[in-house]
Amino acid sequence: MRPNDRKADQVRPIKITRNYTAYAEGSVLVEFGNTKVLCNASVEESVPRWLKGQGKGWVTAEYGMLPRATHTRNRREASSGKQGGRTLEIQRLIARSLRAVVDLEAMPDLMITVDCDVIQADGGTRTASITGASVAMADAFAHLVAKGALKKNPMKSHVAAVSVGILGEDILCDLEYVEDSAADTDMNVVMTEDGRMIEVQGTAEGEPFTHEELMDLLAVARKGIADIVETQKKALESN
Amino acid sequence: MRPNDRKADQVRPIKITRNYTAYAEGSVLVEFGNTKVLCNASVEESVPRWLKGQGKGWVTAEYGMLPRATHTRNRREASSGKQGGRTLEIQRLIARSLRAVVDLEAMPDLMITVDCDVIQADGGTRTASITGASVAMADAFAHLVAKGALKKNPMKSHVAAVSVGILGEDILCDLEYVEDSAADTDMNVVMTEDGRMIEVQGTAEGEPFTHEELMDLLAVARKGIADIVETQKKALESN
Amino acid sequence: MRPNDRKADQVRPIKITRNYTAYAEGSVLVEFGNTKVLCNASVEESVPRWLKGQGKGWVTAEYGMLPRATHTRNRREASSGKQGGRTLEIQRLIARSLRAVVDLEAMPDLMITVDCDVIQADGGTRTASITGASVAMADAFAHLVAKGALKKNPMKSHVAAVSVGILGEDILCDLEYVEDSAADTDMNVVMTEDGRMIEVQGTAEGEPFTHEELMDLLAVARKGIADIVETQKKALESN
Amino acid sequence: MRPNDRKADQVRPIKITRNYTAYAEGSVLVEFGNTKVLCNASVEESVPRWLKGQGKGWVTAEYGMLPRATHTRNRREASSGKQGGRTLEIQRLIARSLRAVVDLEAMPDLMITVDCDVIQADGGTRTASITGASVAMADAFAHLVAKGALKKNPMKSHVAAVSVGILGEDILCDLEYVEDSAADTDMNVVMTEDGRMIEVQGTAEGEPFTHEELMDLLAVARKGIADIVETQKKALESN
Amino acid sequence: MRPNDRKADQVRPIKITRNYTAYAEGSVLVEFGNTKVLCNASVEESVPRWLKGQGKGWVTAEYGMLPRATHTRNRREASSGKQGGRTLEIQRLIARSLRAVVDLEAMPDLMITVDCDVIQADGGTRTASITGASVAMADAFAHLVAKGALKKNPMKSHVAAVSVGILGEDILCDLEYVEDSAADTDMNVVMTEDGRMIEVQGTAEGEPFTHEELMDLLAVARKGIADIVETQKKALESN
Amino acid sequence: MRPNDRKADQVRPIKITRNYTAYAEGSVLVEFGNTKVLCNASVEESVPRWLKGQGKGWVTAEYGMLPRATHTRNRREASSGKQGGRTLEIQRLIARSLRAVVDLEAMPDLMITVDCDVIQADGGTRTASITGASVAMADAFAHLVAKGALKKNPMKSHVAAVSVGILGEDILCDLEYVEDSAADTDMNVVMTEDGRMIEVQGTAEGEPFTHEELMDLLAVARKGIADIVETQKKALESN
Repeated sequence: MRPNDRKADQVRPIKITRNYTAYAEGSVLVEFGNTKVLCNASVEESVPRWLKGQGKGWVTAEYGMLPRATHTRNRREASSGKQGGRTLEIQRLIARSLRAVVDLEAMPDLMITVDCDVIQADGGTRTASITGASVAMADAFAHLVAKGALKKNPMKSHVAAVSVGILGEDILCDLEYVEDSAADTDMNVVMTEDGRMIEVQGTAEGEPFTHEELMDLLAVARKGIADIVETQKKALESN
Repeated sequence: MRPNDRKADQVRPIKITRNYTAYAEGSVLVEFGNTKVLCNASVEESVPRWLKGQGKGWVTAEYGMLPRATHTRNRREASSGKQGGRTLEIQRLIARSLRAVVDLEAMPDLMITVDCDVIQADGGTRTASITGASVAMADAFAHLVAKGALKKNPMKSHVAAVSVGILGEDILCDLEYVEDSAADTDMNVVMTEDGRMIEVQGTAEGEPFTHEELMDLLAVARKGIADIVETQKKALESN
Repeated sequence: MRPNDRKADQVRPIKITRNYTAYAEGSVLVEFGNTKVLCNASVEESVPRWLKGQGKGWVTAEYGMLPRATHTRNRREASSGKQGGRTLEIQRLIARSLRAVVDLEAMPDLMITVDCDVIQADGGTRTASITGASVAMADAFAHLVAKGALKKNPMKSHVAAVSVGILGEDILCDLEYVEDSAADTDMNVVMTEDGRMIEVQGTAEGEPFTHEELMDLLAVARKGIADIVETQKKALESN
Repeated sequence: MRPNDRKADQVRPIKITRNYTAYAEGSVLVEFGNTKVLCNASVEESVPRWLKGQGKGWVTAEYGMLPRATHTRNRREASSGKQGGRTLEIQRLIARSLRAVVDLEAMPDLMITVDCDVIQADGGTRTASITGASVAMADAFAHLVAKGALKKNPMKSHVAAVSVGILGEDILCDLEYVEDSAADTDMNVVMTEDGRMIEVQGTAEGEPFTHEELMDLLAVARKGIADIVETQKKALESN
Repeated sequence: MRPNDRKADQVRPIKITRNYTAYAEGSVLVEFGNTKVLCNASVEESVPRWLKGQGKGWVTAEYGMLPRATHTRNRREASSGKQGGRTLEIQRLIARSLRAVVDLEAMPDLMITVDCDVIQADGGTRTASITGASVAMADAFAHLVAKGALKKNPMKSHVAAVSVGILGEDILCDLEYVEDSAADTDMNVVMTEDGRMIEVQGTAEGEPFTHEELMDLLAVARKGIADIVETQKKALESN
Repeated sequence: MRPNDRKADQVRPIKITRNYTAYAEGSVLVEFGNTKVLCNASVEESVPRWLKGQGKGWVTAEYGMLPRATHTRNRREASSGKQGGRTLEIQRLIARSLRAVVDLEAMPDLMITVDCDVIQADGGTRTASITGASVAMADAFAHLVAKGALKKNPMKSHVAAVSVGILGEDILCDLEYVEDSAADTDMNVVMTEDGRMIEVQGTAEGEPFTHEELMDLLAVARKGIADIVETQKKALESN
């Protein structure tokens, strides 16, 4: 049995708090159980140099973890002088996932940067980040529409993500830390609200996995993401 | 009149939430009005190399600001590859202030690191950090006493801090951002709970200040800190 | 039709040259068409500090690209002062893929580092790197067995990789640069010699992809990897 | 009794040598006893990017210490790859102190950088730096007036600084190294020539200090700075 | 007797392979015995900022060594975060040597960067780099002439280099690694094709050397370089 | 005619001031005309890690230039985050030159670091540095002998250096800045006190140079160094 009597294919309680901080155009605290990530979307009226003059916009993301978001303290990346490989890998994944649901040509000369900062980590920080960032970005676009900078919202879909894994015989959805560190295979799946895939990243930590296992993992992920997209939609409907 | 009808010598509403995150030995969210800082105290059973074998302990601090804690987004220090001068200056100040109230010889071979991360900034982040860090450190020491690693708490006093400033003719206590950026003189005062001074840092941003003005600033700071220490004590009494 | 009259599910001509340089315990030049990567496996009789005293070994990898491996010159990472996010992501992938086929407990206190340096890049450098690194690592282990440092080779399988993608209506295997930059979806698949999966990383660059498309991509990848493993085996049989 | 029979409220012999090096628009070697700092003021006809087009000028400072300025050799900051927190803190203090006495609007599109490099350190390097930098800056402005780039000197006052401290029962002025490292409280005071305050930075190294002690420290500082301003004026009168 | 029965004043077998990679405007693999360096010349239609608007061009070089080019693995400079002193020294030497034979005014607003990357190192990597870079640069200029960007080739001469040294009683030409590490004096000589000198860098590793020894070293270097220039010319004649 | 009526083969007035600062075991201000370099030799009772346990000592050097040592201000290397290629090249040259005259086996487990910091630069800073460093190192060894840490001085010779160059038709000794920047060929020569060579580094800045020109340069260098060694000896004789 999983911690808190969760079923194998069940996501943790997910909570999305909008307007969590005061200044960002979109500010979301997303919680997947004990994993808590603050996602702040910032609008800038300029694009990176390499994109200038093309009539397009850009969406990017940065990821960080507070030093004591974890059981033992990690060294602060600002102090060690560089972002680690894991950090860079995650923020590239978040950024790609967000861009996949945005029509960049419909936001000319605008840039949105979503900062995902992990306040508390209990597994699944990258999938929680993508899930929260999607809502924060939606708020930022709504802000741009409201103030007249955009005629219509360039988001084509919500984007949500979940981790799935193989632990012994079980296919588990939304692994928390103790499960994640014991899993044989770990997979992160990013989908649109209608269930098409944006990213699939499966890694064999122990034994290689078979085609059948991959099918099972995807099925569980699809179900979990459907629940997560529900939560996103409800959060955005509330005022 | 000040924003929110505050009186010149009045601090903003101060809120101290203990056990804000789950893993740190002391975890405090401190709020001075809209300024919100998460202060996590981490215990390590080792000391820096230069202190080894002296039978002493150490207390240090790190400071950071989330990129969108402010009105416009700041570049992430982890990404720019180094902590700025302002950051280093503030974290040195926090660490000195904490050490000033700890008997380092009474915590042999133990180190406490307090991470102060600004979630939202509206002036006074360094004084809020010191105020919250004192409570987080107290909880960490209580944890060490409870588990038997220390016989008694090596803290000799609480430490609290407030900013004061001269704005036109007025001596103001606990400046928020719009006041701070307009002030002629800005002073940060750090005191023990019985009102003795640990740090006094006054800077003339515009006109130099006189001895009389310095006296007025200190009087206002003393009153503000007394209120802040009250709030610290109440927070620690709860539970 | 693809360049060089390749069929959609066909890999480019693959060439594996062993003993390419003189000093490395395993040295392989791997060519996937015009993509050429030098994979040098180095043996060290020590392990990273965090692994000391556990009776295990370690396998890691580094990745680099010569500045003019590409159509236009890229800035040298040694000169810019850090490895980019793409570089770190790739070398983490290579290292994980190699470790997935090695019994680390059967190589106590030994470390193998495989350097994958791209001499010429025409798409698929990460999958070529994994493919070549597997052979270089096999040679390094053979060297250790030959000199008596290991009783038996701790490799459990070869590991090979290929990229697949969706370009318009077509599912293509082993994309070269012009195909890769036009593809809607790009997927890298890493498998053992018996076709079990080690890594699956699919990314929608344009439109999200469906479950059926994912199935098609995996089928094409499986066929391509079977051919690549054949080439690896032949290379290792030759003396 | 203090070293060299100094009285408690007496500054060390202070020597200011102008035109110490040949190229800088202002070049001053300042000596406070054995503390020797070379202060070179450089004029540039451009301002930092963020100040462009505002019709203002800028004054900044940098601080460094030769590796063997101290009893034991310190690592060269250029070699360690960054300036330490103490260095950044000091150069920010010097720069603020200088700007406090300059009318930046009266030096449009001009920038002065004062480099303070410590040749020999025996306590009080930051206060000596400010004192010498003021004279070097005055010479640089005189140079600009002489060549017609400025109609009048934008300096509103000299600026001078001294350290004071509490050592046991005594309030000491201008501490040398052995005194500084034993002091309970250390305070740096920066004043204009008419005795108004620009910076007051007091730190309790041991016991917190009382309001009365702060008053005594300020009185001693005021007297010391009056002597230092005398020396500055004499140096500038000589040709 | 030297390894491979080489005579004291004899260079190793030298091989120059043009068009070694596909994209660079000049791409040369140069081999001095077991020392193998890939020299890629890249053309850019812009010059460094400090040279803009002067109607001149620029030639520069970068140098690197693959981590396992040597008997034991060296740390990757991209990973350690900076190029070492030896690397910077060598690439400055290569760049100066190339510029010495180019009329920079005859290549307005064009820049050539030659990347010299050592695939395998057995002594003399800097002299092999200069020798190969000269041919790669010649090809790049020929490319510019062929496409009409330049009317005539701005190279005034080939440039070639060799190391010479004193080992015991012997004056040796083109030292390989085992000789180089045992030599008392090591000298690198860079010459034009007509035997005039561009760089002479002699270093006493053990005993200082006399004027007579210097004369002997130069004579041997001159003879070796004549042979090397022959090889360069033959390589460039072949198509 | 040269500035100050110097003859072509004449060195500038050379002045060597010992005990220039108070703490270094050897502290020398060396002046070659307007070029002024402070050379501080520091003794440490430990050697670099790679040399431990071999019963040998080590001599090394670091070089720096104050930002305003030159006609226009250079960026501070500590602030830009790394030492430039020129700096590293020079400090490697100084260190090799010093080691060439020391019996490292006669100074077991001792290290001397000579910091050469340029206070004012007018050409020839590297040769002045070597010349001054030799005297500072001699004083440091004398200090070690005096306090009994060494039985005898491990220096085998003084070491001195000079720059020579070709300017038009003239062979000039000890070039100052205006000469150096106009010279066709620039050569730095480092010799022992008996005139044997330690380093010869000749560079054609404009036209390549002939064998005859090299002979002339060496003859002029030899004469200049003889004068410089005289000055070194006189400085060391004085008390």
